[in-house]
Amino acid sequence: MQNLIDLVDKKLNEYMPIVYPEDIFKAMKYTVTLPGKRLRPVMCLETVRMLGGDVEKALPTACAIEMLHAQSLIHDDLPCMDNDDFRRGKPSNHKVFGEANAVLAGDALLTFAPQLIIEKSELPAETTLKLVYEFTKWGGAYALIAGQVVDIQSEGGKLIKSPEETLNFIHLNKTGALFRLAMRSGTIIAGGSEKTLGEIDEFAKKFGLAFQIYDDIMDEISSFEELGKTAGKDKNCGKLTYVSLYGLEDAKNKFDSLMLDCYDIIKKYNSNIFTNIMKKLENRLLGV
Amino acid sequence: MQNLIDLVDKKLNEYMPIVYPEDIFKAMKYTVTLPGKRLRPVMCLETVRMLGGDVEKALPTACAIEMLHAQSLIHDDLPCMDNDDFRRGKPSNHKVFGEANAVLAGDALLTFAPQLIIEKSELPAETTLKLVYEFTKWGGAYALIAGQVVDIQSEGGKLIKSPEETLNFIHLNKTGALFRLAMRSGTIIAGGSEKTLGEIDEFAKKFGLAFQIYDDIMDEISSFEELGKTAGKDKNCGKLTYVSLYGLEDAKNKFDSLMLDCYDIIKKYNSNIFTNIMKKLENRLLGV
Repeated sequence: MQNLIDLVDKKLNEYMPIVYPEDIFKAMKYTVTLPGKRLRPVMCLETVRMLGGDVEKALPTACAIEMLHAQSLIHDDLPCMDNDDFRRGKPSNHKVFGEANAVLAGDALLTFAPQLIIEKSELPAETTLKLVYEFTKWGGAYALIAGQVVDIQSEGGKLIKSPEETLNFIHLNKTGALFRLAMRSGTIIAGGSEKTLGEIDEFAKKFGLAFQIYDDIMDEISSFEELGKTAGKDKNCGKLTYVSLYGLEDAKNKFDSLMLDCYDIIKKYNSNIFTNIMKKLENRLLGV
Repeated sequence: MQNLIDLVDKKLNEYMPIVYPEDIFKAMKYTVTLPGKRLRPVMCLETVRMLGGDVEKALPTACAIEMLHAQSLIHDDLPCMDNDDFRRGKPSNHKVFGEANAVLAGDALLTFAPQLIIEKSELPAETTLKLVYEFTKWGGAYALIAGQVVDIQSEGGKLIKSPEETLNFIHLNKTGALFRLAMRSGTIIAGGSEKTLGEIDEFAKKFGLAFQIYDDIMDEISSFEELGKTAGKDKNCGKLTYVSLYGLEDAKNKFDSLMLDCYDIIKKYNSNIFTNIMKKLENRLLGV
């Protein structure tokens, strides 16, 4: 796993040269290269590997997905959004580069990332086009951004659907969209069948939901040092979370049940990496 | 020309259904469909027509370029950017939908637009991929956003290059990028040769520069009613413009000289539409 993280870090650095006007490239690169677990790119690469594809050819896409993730974090941290001064233990983008540059850095990543996929993938045009299509679909108003919008609405007390449906929608889209993008892209690069794509997608969807429940629980019980961002923020904002809606125990049960489903799907692919990631989450929640 | 504008308006409306969560789709659609001249999509469609291509197949791309333009306007108007309360005579996006939704609406348009090109163009994968590539390149940190960043730097008195070079860079990228994207995309859809692409690109570049000089002059001499946005804003901010740097007369001369070059390139394509657009600008500047 550390191998893949190092590979992604090396490539992220390589793919993002600082050219004129430096302010924008520095701002883009700052958040993208903050030390992190590189979960989404690793999920993409591991999907390619476990399906027998060429991991090398997946690197631009894996990095593009990390850039999309960073983009959502940069804009999420803005004062008009979640207003968070820290991210991964460091000052957030707008605290370092100013709000205007942070807005533009996020914007720039949204086109830089698919540009990278097109320029560097060395795959047939049909495959590349499919990858870019997945990127635009899961990164946009029908998925990732839909989740963010409903999240903001719910914070403002504006619920169009029931609290349960609303929370599910937020989680499926905010976290689930990028997980699905990562693993669907990996499947496409490896040339997986429609059936495989369906299975992998189902895993990513459930794992995304489980991961977000995990995140809700951690936000409830952790300190700033552990999280690298302001802790207990969700609770303080009166935000809709699995814990606020169902309580800690039911949230934990829901997490466990989703994890069982995930093991059930992933077992036939013999992936140590996915198994390890899942075990790590489970271990951290032991005793909660 | 009005035919093409109407066609673009009809398609923009058709391509943007309002679905759950409605807030984001309404915010996206609001700025995209504000009444306007649809200059960039018309330039794209007219390029296709004059090169003998299928205008119908260019509609998704033309509309995507208008969406990219709207995206840049939405984020440009934000309080942390140009802080403008009006756009095309109407309240700007964040005044209607709030800042958070305006940020997200801009983000969403950046992936919605290429998604539209991929979903609706009905062109060979190679061609569609080229179109998306142009979109990501001209819409991003190497072009449109580079222009915006240097614009912001120069407003803050931070000039890395000379004022003349800086202003040229801003104009070539802020306005030029979308003009070039529009006409290059049109050429690609029509199947134009590399030589044609080069000529068309040169026209778009020069016309973009001329258009921005025109805009600088108009901002200097017009009222709110005529512009549909706060007038004299550039002057009040001490912004670097052709007029502030070279004076009104030299700016006008530069405009005239660029227009001559543009006529020289476009004449062999027999385009009433381009000729009319150019004449309209010239007429408005008569007597300035």
